[in-house]
Amino acid sequence: MSKALPTRSENYSEWYNELVKRADLAENSAVRGCMVIKPYGYSIWEKMQRALDDMFKETGHTNAYFPLFIPKSYLSKEASHVEGFAKECAVVTHYRLKNDPDGKGVIVDPDAKLEEELIVRPTSETVIWSTYKNWIQSYRDLPLLINQWANVVRWEMRTRLFLRTAEFLWQEGHTAHSTSAEAIAETKQMLEVYAEFAEQWMALPVVKGIKTANERFAGAEDTYCIEALMQDGKALQAGTSHFLGQNFAKAFDVKFQDKEGKLEHVWGTSWGVSTRLMGALIMAHSDDSGLVLPPKLAPIQVVIVPIYKNEEQLAAITEKVNEIRKELKTLGISVKFDDSDAYKPGYKFAEYELKGVPVRLAIGARDLENGTVEVARRDTKTKETVALEGIAGFVRDLLDNIQQAIYDKAFAFREENTTKVDSFEEFNKVLDSKGGFILAHWDGTSETEEKIKEETKATIRCVPLNATEESGVCIYSGKPSTKRVVFARAY
Amino acid sequence: MSKALPTRSENYSEWYNELVKRADLAENSAVRGCMVIKPYGYSIWEKMQRALDDMFKETGHTNAYFPLFIPKSYLSKEASHVEGFAKECAVVTHYRLKNDPDGKGVIVDPDAKLEEELIVRPTSETVIWSTYKNWIQSYRDLPLLINQWANVVRWEMRTRLFLRTAEFLWQEGHTAHSTSAEAIAETKQMLEVYAEFAEQWMALPVVKGIKTANERFAGAEDTYCIEALMQDGKALQAGTSHFLGQNFAKAFDVKFQDKEGKLEHVWGTSWGVSTRLMGALIMAHSDDSGLVLPPKLAPIQVVIVPIYKNEEQLAAITEKVNEIRKELKTLGISVKFDDSDAYKPGYKFAEYELKGVPVRLAIGARDLENGTVEVARRDTKTKETVALEGIAGFVRDLLDNIQQAIYDKAFAFREENTTKVDSFEEFNKVLDSKGGFILAHWDGTSETEEKIKEETKATIRCVPLNATEESGVCIYSGKPSTKRVVFARAY
Repeated sequence: MSKALPTRSENYSEWYNELVKRADLAENSAVRGCMVIKPYGYSIWEKMQRALDDMFKETGHTNAYFPLFIPKSYLSKEASHVEGFAKECAVVTHYRLKNDPDGKGVIVDPDAKLEEELIVRPTSETVIWSTYKNWIQSYRDLPLLINQWANVVRWEMRTRLFLRTAEFLWQEGHTAHSTSAEAIAETKQMLEVYAEFAEQWMALPVVKGIKTANERFAGAEDTYCIEALMQDGKALQAGTSHFLGQNFAKAFDVKFQDKEGKLEHVWGTSWGVSTRLMGALIMAHSDDSGLVLPPKLAPIQVVIVPIYKNEEQLAAITEKVNEIRKELKTLGISVKFDDSDAYKPGYKFAEYELKGVPVRLAIGARDLENGTVEVARRDTKTKETVALEGIAGFVRDLLDNIQQAIYDKAFAFREENTTKVDSFEEFNKVLDSKGGFILAHWDGTSETEEKIKEETKATIRCVPLNATEESGVCIYSGKPSTKRVVFARAY
Repeated sequence: MSKALPTRSENYSEWYNELVKRADLAENSAVRGCMVIKPYGYSIWEKMQRALDDMFKETGHTNAYFPLFIPKSYLSKEASHVEGFAKECAVVTHYRLKNDPDGKGVIVDPDAKLEEELIVRPTSETVIWSTYKNWIQSYRDLPLLINQWANVVRWEMRTRLFLRTAEFLWQEGHTAHSTSAEAIAETKQMLEVYAEFAEQWMALPVVKGIKTANERFAGAEDTYCIEALMQDGKALQAGTSHFLGQNFAKAFDVKFQDKEGKLEHVWGTSWGVSTRLMGALIMAHSDDSGLVLPPKLAPIQVVIVPIYKNEEQLAAITEKVNEIRKELKTLGISVKFDDSDAYKPGYKFAEYELKGVPVRLAIGARDLENGTVEVARRDTKTKETVALEGIAGFVRDLLDNIQQAIYDKAFAFREENTTKVDSFEEFNKVLDSKGGFILAHWDGTSETEEKIKEETKATIRCVPLNATEESGVCIYSGKPSTKRVVFARAY
């Protein structure tokens, strides 16, 4: 608390790292690349989970749980899937330790070698489709609409808290359908669910789009995504929804008998969001004083700090505060009364700013006399004096306003930082000056996409779903193009 | 569905295995000992989680998340802990696969060997206490009251769905305190939480007790437990709460400065319940027709089945049913209307019996005329005709009655199957005839306990917390004893 945060303009990356730690969101563990999600950070994640889970259930999905371990041979069954994940698999080879005969510690028991090595799931398509084979016989068993909340492991070499960690928490939906059209509709539906969650709960405007072949999920026919813009002008992929075609059904021989009695391979989808969303939430809204949390995801929505000179004043304030707390709770608003005497009000103010509590009420003896309270909002860092009469309703409306204001601010930022360019020179100039989303024509080839990536580190984030037909020429190759795609440097 | 379940009296073990599969609770996966928890089973677990999580939060705990992997060397830091877990650890040794030069598959890349092997957590004391070291400096940081919901892996050689699986889901609470007394109070508080959950939610009467030294958690000073009795007369440990003393604080050098400025080691607790509770729930209440679920944990509390001869009748019934569903939902009761025409009512009745739906309503055309409905309760398999007027309130009260009746039945069963014995001969006789809980005097030595176990396969489940002082002699050694302990054969 004593030292100020690095500022975003000084060092955005340091600002992020420090903020994650100081706001008690997460920290690195003793195991390289694995994080500890601290209670305050986890309580935000729990709110995300609850909201998403409700949305999944409203759209007809149920939860289940599949094993952590995947037999090594399963990965190989879908060719591009193994290609995509083999390089980052944590492998279990033994199932027992024994005392080290030469020392005090323990060693891996060489006699306890597994017949077939097990992979710690990097994603669960293979283990789930091998299970679906037994669950699906007839069209009556379809659609199968299942989600799981789980931990997964991808052995990344360069990790960053929330954004890229060796182990992360996520949900992965895996559905099976009798037609291609139905599976595609499901893929798109879940993209809409993610977009709605990002915008309504995280106050995060997103571009909905489709990935190019290069950026597609390993094993998918099409990958849909939502892309968000961070304050440093870099993009962050916030969720993906994959149309798997019949790839996994073929790899695991999952067939169903249709109404006419014909055997057909099943059509599949998978879709996921992860604790990476925590990174997006932090990077999109927070400022040099700390976190800025949208009220809908804030573990504490309102903090009340008493300002007092003696016990008598504190007692009178506490009595009034208890009334206010009760009213706020009735409205479903979470509130904390910080009457600890260990710290001064100024210290507490800074602490709750750092933690991103959306609304702070400060009440002193004079406020009681005047029937007022000082209301501070975190997002704008503005204060006003408000009548105690009707304060609960005022706070409820204020929280709604803040939720909207945070979204509007992020939306305006994205608008300001979305640029149409028509030449590669302009492309480079924008990229190096302000970054952001760059809308440009592209010739549709992987070759051009890769060359642009090599030269600029920018990638095609997506082909936006709402892109209008517009004839133009590729900024790199000069070949004809019919719509603009979104380029950006990305997390 | 076509073949009847094995009966409990025929083959209790087969009955359990088949029931778990046929009621769509869980199944074995391709990985030895790891289970797939199917949607219906998982929805019961979700209800357990929600209820427990609320109770943990009400008692001041917050959730967090710690890494899946534990460096091998950490396990060795607490001597009895490593002794207890080394023999069942899944070990990650490599972090990459590569194409097999001789074939189509993938092999473990020998160049991607980890410097230090990682253990897939069998329990998280070591990784958590290594983290707490940095979180705790002063008495102001205490108590630290944290829980996590997670998967853990213990490489068991003989596994059974829910009861003993290589991977299972659980929660593990890990708390740190400034005094021994406070840590013991926490240990006991969480035991009470578990007992309340078992009795109020699972309708499962439990004996609260303390484990003998032999059965203690590896690394604990004392292990408290709740023990339940299954219908085959075997005991099942349903939850444990451990007083860790300063063992892990010393192993990981976790000290705090007390109010006087003196450095002291911290006192710890840990406590957990797992998906094993699913096994207890099934075994305690279910019958030869299938699951019997206490209403508070039933995913579907009420199913409504229409009895109709033509579309017109179905339409009239549906209209009435929609009213009833609305009323039931207003009362917070989950209800399913099964109007599918794929199956006949009799088939549906059997299906919902198998799934343990507590209340079934059947409505036919004549019921509509008479203003009645047939109400069947799953636990007693009794039916009655009830007026449609006020049916929602009737069902609400019935669900409450069923919850209590299931508990009462299990309680009566336990009472009937709890026997005081005063000789080893009698002990053996009871054990081999009906089993159950056997209350007997024991001399307090591990030696006697082990001999009894070798000869009878019965173990001391616990020294009950409510045991009254009573002088007697050990049934095995004849040495003096001051109270009776609970013996049983156990899962």
